[in-house]
Amino acid sequence: MKPTDMDKEGTELTEETEHMIEKNGAKETENVVSAGDTKEMRAVILSGFGGLNKLRVTKKAMPEPQEGEVKIRVKACGLNFLDLMVRQGNIDNPPKTPLVPGFECSGIVEAMGENTKGFEIGDRVMAFVNYNAWAEVVCTPLDYVYNMPDDMTFPEAAAFSMNFVAAYMMLFEVANLREGMSVLVHSAGGGVGQAVAQLCATIPSVTVFGTASSFKHEAIKDSVTHLFDRNADYVQEVKKISPEGVDIVLDCLSGENTGKGLGLLRPLGTYILYGSSNMVTGETKSFFSLAKSWWQVEKVNPIKLYEENKVIAGFSLLNLLFKQGRCGQVKTVVEKLFSLYNQKKIKPVVDSLWALEEVKEAMQRIHDRGNIGKLILDVEKSPTPLVPLGENSTRKKTAGNIPT
Amino acid sequence: MKPTDMDKEGTELTEETEHMIEKNGAKETENVVSAGDTKEMRAVILSGFGGLNKLRVTKKAMPEPQEGEVKIRVKACGLNFLDLMVRQGNIDNPPKTPLVPGFECSGIVEAMGENTKGFEIGDRVMAFVNYNAWAEVVCTPLDYVYNMPDDMTFPEAAAFSMNFVAAYMMLFEVANLREGMSVLVHSAGGGVGQAVAQLCATIPSVTVFGTASSFKHEAIKDSVTHLFDRNADYVQEVKKISPEGVDIVLDCLSGENTGKGLGLLRPLGTYILYGSSNMVTGETKSFFSLAKSWWQVEKVNPIKLYEENKVIAGFSLLNLLFKQGRCGQVKTVVEKLFSLYNQKKIKPVVDSLWALEEVKEAMQRIHDRGNIGKLILDVEKSPTPLVPLGENSTRKKTAGNIPT
Repeated sequence: MKPTDMDKEGTELTEETEHMIEKNGAKETENVVSAGDTKEMRAVILSGFGGLNKLRVTKKAMPEPQEGEVKIRVKACGLNFLDLMVRQGNIDNPPKTPLVPGFECSGIVEAMGENTKGFEIGDRVMAFVNYNAWAEVVCTPLDYVYNMPDDMTFPEAAAFSMNFVAAYMMLFEVANLREGMSVLVHSAGGGVGQAVAQLCATIPSVTVFGTASSFKHEAIKDSVTHLFDRNADYVQEVKKISPEGVDIVLDCLSGENTGKGLGLLRPLGTYILYGSSNMVTGETKSFFSLAKSWWQVEKVNPIKLYEENKVIAGFSLLNLLFKQGRCGQVKTVVEKLFSLYNQKKIKPVVDSLWALEEVKEAMQRIHDRGNIGKLILDVEKSPTPLVPLGENSTRKKTAGNIPT
Repeated sequence: MKPTDMDKEGTELTEETEHMIEKNGAKETENVVSAGDTKEMRAVILSGFGGLNKLRVTKKAMPEPQEGEVKIRVKACGLNFLDLMVRQGNIDNPPKTPLVPGFECSGIVEAMGENTKGFEIGDRVMAFVNYNAWAEVVCTPLDYVYNMPDDMTFPEAAAFSMNFVAAYMMLFEVANLREGMSVLVHSAGGGVGQAVAQLCATIPSVTVFGTASSFKHEAIKDSVTHLFDRNADYVQEVKKISPEGVDIVLDCLSGENTGKGLGLLRPLGTYILYGSSNMVTGETKSFFSLAKSWWQVEKVNPIKLYEENKVIAGFSLLNLLFKQGRCGQVKTVVEKLFSLYNQKKIKPVVDSLWALEEVKEAMQRIHDRGNIGKLILDVEKSPTPLVPLGENSTRKKTAGNIPT
């Protein structure tokens, strides 16, 4: 990451990060005292909606499992674009702050509430959590907990849950990916993008068109059939190669891209809106203008769909899990995915591991689209020692190292 | 059919029909003379867009197959709601009149143009035609022609093509019907409705909700899990039985029903708009007001689909075949359907057979939703002898007899 990229969300980022770590080091003692007998844990806290400065690591009372819940000693957490939207309060019905962000983690079962069959203390598990994942300990209903494959590492599991489940359900349950079809995916280098590419490769003769920043092309070129720069006119690029378009468009961009995506569909093709990464920005003004374009996204005329034989869908895994109660369906998908993992047909791509105290830098990296694959918060990792500012680039590399 | 029903589209219907038949009887000789050496055939002609009085049977020059075409001696033709819309000119880019209506037929191969492998003279075939089906002879590209199963009758084949292909593609290619799902279909007694019900029965534990006129309920009650009167508030009725809605809504009603249909979907459910039977009416004024409601059909916000995990699709088999060139995909579907037919898992329901000269009465019957299953024009059938008007009801029954 170049210093100029760092500037996007706030020039004081590095200072902030240093400050946060120092402050938390100092704060820990205070909190332990105030907490009395209650057991404590480290957690990332979002104190209010806004910039990176709303995030800090602090001590919190450790949760205990309620009936039907599993208590997990967290090893790794996934960081998603969605977490940036949460930080900015840029989601539907945002929850109250302060809160602990994070929707997915992996770890070891430490305790169970009543009526929690199927798990034992010591089980290695992957889990969805409705917030609160970015902590040393989480409790979540057993419907959201899955025993991990033996060969899967904790970072892999945390990189796996949201991205692969979303990619699988979009490709095979919302759309109907079959032999010979073609798929367009934006942010092909990101967590979902890489999951989509791998899942497409499990079906014969699927063509994957992807957009990604040019600097990622070398790294991901084997996973995608045709790669375009993210600033290129992807409609034109796709049509040059496939004049009649594609069968499935996965769109995390929002706004004006819905019309473009629908326009690129072949007959019986499916456009899926699953995210909104264009909405995230560091500047308040453009944030609001983008939010406006999101809410004023072009509406679709069903008659046009009828005439053109097209399908438009929306997909939100979190709503499916936490608002719409489709845990059973997701569990079936997780089992299919674990089977594919065990057959070595898919493997989560981990971009980099970060200490909880490095969450701001991790967020900046995903904001700047610097990642290839998934960013993981490694709960047991110590923050990388600070180095002089001039060596930012080297330092980032160290922070992002993946243990082999 | 009661006389009051007949009145809906025009009180002069019966007279018209009689007149048509008589006139055509007289006209035949004239046309033969004027045609010189050209071979002739009987065909239904639509002289202009409008009411039933725009239809008549006349003699026309017999078409000869061009390169890649198959010439078929027609035995039976399907009559669809869409044919009423065509008659009223109530379709996108209506073709020029006069024209011969009809999009599907079955019959015997009589000749082939050059480059038409796969067929032989005498083959029993089912075919799609881009208009011109309602005649003694049609020519159509070989991509639209399929050899019929040995056990299938000509009326069955003509009842099969559009309805079963549309039902199959909607259920299994646009949506993704699987075990345990639920489907809502309107006009459950119609051709598509009966095809949907039969195809749902090929998958375990599928619940079918259907709307139909009450007088049809006894006849179709075994094919549909839950039947509601077509004038009932189906949203409330479905929710009484399944509070969380259904997985697939098939809507041929248009207009205000899109919102209702979307509202009834369970998460990951699919709403498919495939027709517009509410648009057809006999009165010019209400025709325009309905056409307006069609074109002003409620638009759909993709964000709402995202939040609710819903899918909306449009399906037009004719556009797929004749504008979008997806013959290969349709051929695969036809093969699957023939296999299901041969396994006796599906069987087209023929409502009634009509002579070409009875096309107006057949149209009135579908307009009035009197049919259970498909209306077929039986090209070799003679018009049922006229009986005094007072015996309309008996006469209709005779006309509609299905040979056993």
